[in-house]
Amino acid sequence: MSADGIVAIEGKPVRDIVRVPGGPSSKLDPNGQYQVEQMYVQYFLPKRRLGKLPLLMWHGGGLTGVTYETTPDGREGWLNMFGRKGWDVYVSDAVERGRSGFASPDVWAGEPIFLTYADPFERFRIGDGEGSWNADPAKRKVLPGDQFPVEAYDNYMKQIVPRWLSTDAAVIAGYVALVDKVCPCVLLLHSQGGSFGLKVAEARPDKIKAIVAVEPAGAGNPDKAGALKDTPVLMLFGDYVDQHPRWVAYRKLDLEYAAAVRAAGGKVDVISLPDLGIRGNSHMMMMDKNNGAIADVIAKWLADQGLTEPEALDESKGSVR
Amino acid sequence: MSADGIVAIEGKPVRDIVRVPGGPSSKLDPNGQYQVEQMYVQYFLPKRRLGKLPLLMWHGGGLTGVTYETTPDGREGWLNMFGRKGWDVYVSDAVERGRSGFASPDVWAGEPIFLTYADPFERFRIGDGEGSWNADPAKRKVLPGDQFPVEAYDNYMKQIVPRWLSTDAAVIAGYVALVDKVCPCVLLLHSQGGSFGLKVAEARPDKIKAIVAVEPAGAGNPDKAGALKDTPVLMLFGDYVDQHPRWVAYRKLDLEYAAAVRAAGGKVDVISLPDLGIRGNSHMMMMDKNNGAIADVIAKWLADQGLTEPEALDESKGSVR
Repeated sequence: MSADGIVAIEGKPVRDIVRVPGGPSSKLDPNGQYQVEQMYVQYFLPKRRLGKLPLLMWHGGGLTGVTYETTPDGREGWLNMFGRKGWDVYVSDAVERGRSGFASPDVWAGEPIFLTYADPFERFRIGDGEGSWNADPAKRKVLPGDQFPVEAYDNYMKQIVPRWLSTDAAVIAGYVALVDKVCPCVLLLHSQGGSFGLKVAEARPDKIKAIVAVEPAGAGNPDKAGALKDTPVLMLFGDYVDQHPRWVAYRKLDLEYAAAVRAAGGKVDVISLPDLGIRGNSHMMMMDKNNGAIADVIAKWLADQGLTEPEALDESKGSVR
Repeated sequence: MSADGIVAIEGKPVRDIVRVPGGPSSKLDPNGQYQVEQMYVQYFLPKRRLGKLPLLMWHGGGLTGVTYETTPDGREGWLNMFGRKGWDVYVSDAVERGRSGFASPDVWAGEPIFLTYADPFERFRIGDGEGSWNADPAKRKVLPGDQFPVEAYDNYMKQIVPRWLSTDAAVIAGYVALVDKVCPCVLLLHSQGGSFGLKVAEARPDKIKAIVAVEPAGAGNPDKAGALKDTPVLMLFGDYVDQHPRWVAYRKLDLEYAAAVRAAGGKVDVISLPDLGIRGNSHMMMMDKNNGAIADVIAKWLADQGLTEPEALDESKGSVR
C-alpha cells in the first residue's frame, strides 16, 4: 500500500457474483487500484473558544462518532455539551466504520462481525448481564436505577455498525494521521477507543496534552506507558463494574496500565462515579440520562489540568461551564 | 422483518471464520435478532430561518452525506452554503452507506461493490471519459476547463464507500420514513439519489413541496409521474453531458420522466448550466470550484417557487442570499 492509502489488487481471480438478488451470476474483476483505510472526521468550532486545545472524541467498538451526537432518547450528547463549554470538538469514525468506509475482502482478511440486538443490552450494563434481555420489554431485567434511556434502546441499536477484528493497525494509523494533522490536543476516548487512544498517545506523547478515557476496554502497552509521563490521564468508570466479570477484567488491565504510567512519573486519576455519588451509569454513559453531570465531571478535570481559559469558570455557580 | 427493522436470522449453519489474520478458524453462529436497514440523518438549523421548509440533501451512489459537507480541496460545501442562506438542512447517509451501517450476508443477498481509484475520474466528467485516468497526475486527461478540484482528487476518493446492488427497496423505505418524520420539505437530490428521491416523491407527493435533482442517474417511474403534478421540479445538468454516452442516456431517462410529469399538469424546469454561461461542471458539481455559483442558481429557483421568506432576497445585490 502506498503512503496515501492506495492499494493495488493484482493477480486475484475474476469471480462470479450475484449483483441483484435473483439475478444472473456475473463476473467481478477485483483487480485494480483502490483507496483504503482513510478516516472521516467532522469538527465543530464554538463561537467563543474556552478550551485551549482541540478535543478529539473517539468512539468504542461497533459504533461511530454518532456516539457523541445525541442520546437515543433525543437529548443532546457530549458533542453539543462540550461545544457549549467552548471546546473545538472533532468527532471521527474510526477506519472501517461509518463514513470512513471499508475495504474489500481482497484487501482486508477476515469478515465483519455483527452484534445481535440483545448483545449490548446484556454487555454494556444496561440489563443485568447475560440472560437479562427478553424480546418482551416488560420481561427485560434492567439494572436497578440504571441511567441508560432503556425505553429508547431501539434507537441505540440503530447506531451499531459492523466491525472487523483484523484492522487494529489501520485504525491506529488513521488516528495517528489525525493527531499529526490537528494536535496538540486532548483525547476523549470510549471503550475500544480507549485502547486505541492510549496506543496513539504512546506514539505521539508530545501531541497529546491530556486524555480522558471512559471505561477503556483494554489499555495501551504497559512497556511503553512511560511515554505518557507528561500527559495527565483521567480514567472514568460507571456503576456496577464490580458485578460484571468482563468489566472487572478490563478495569484490571486499565489499572495496571495506570500503575505503569505512574511508575514512570506520570499522573493518572481514576474516578469511579459512584464514589462521587453519581450512580447507575452504564458503559454508554455519554448517552445516560445524567450525561450532563458526567460531562461536568470531565470539564472540571480538564479545567484542573489548566486546559481551559479562566472565563470557563462560571463564577455565579463556582463551577465549570 | 418487523416494522421497526428487527430481523430474526434462524436456521443458518454455524460457520467457521478467521477472526484475526493468521489466527485460528473459529465458529460464528449468525442466528439471532439483528437491527437492520436503519438510516442516519444529521441536521443543522440556522439562527435565522429564511427557507420555509426543511431542505433534505440526498447523495449519489458510492457516496454518503459527506458529499455536501466540504469540497475535496477544503472549501465549504452546500450544507454550509444553504445553512447560511437560512435553510434547515438535513443530510443523510442512505440505508447501507456510512453511518447507517449495513446488514450481514445472512440478511442482504449479493456482495458490496468497490469503486476503483480511476473509476469516478473517468465516469464523472472530471477526466475525458474512458482511458483518461493515469497513475501519473501529469498524464491524466482532464476535461478542458473542468471545474472539479482535480488536484484534490485523492481527498474525493476518501469519501467513496462500498455499495450494494440489492438494497434499493430498503433505501427507499428509509427515505420514506424520513419524509414521514420531518416533511413537508424540499428535496435536493444527486445522481442515484435522484432516482430514489423521485420515487419517494411518487409515494409521498403531499409531503414533497419541491425537488432539485442534480444530474439524476435515472428518474422515477413514468407511469407514476402524475403524482408530482403539484411538486415543482428543477433538473440541473453540468457541462460535457453530450460527449459522454452514459450521461446522455441518463438525461434521456430524466427528460422522458419530465415529459410525463408535464403531461400530468406538473412543472419541470430543466437547466443546463452552460446555457447560463456556467461552464466546466462535472457530475460532482457541489464540489466544483464554482459550487457557490451553482448553489445560487438553486437558491434563486427555490425563491421563485415561493419557498423562501422575503428577507432571503439580498436587496443590495438584487439576488438571493
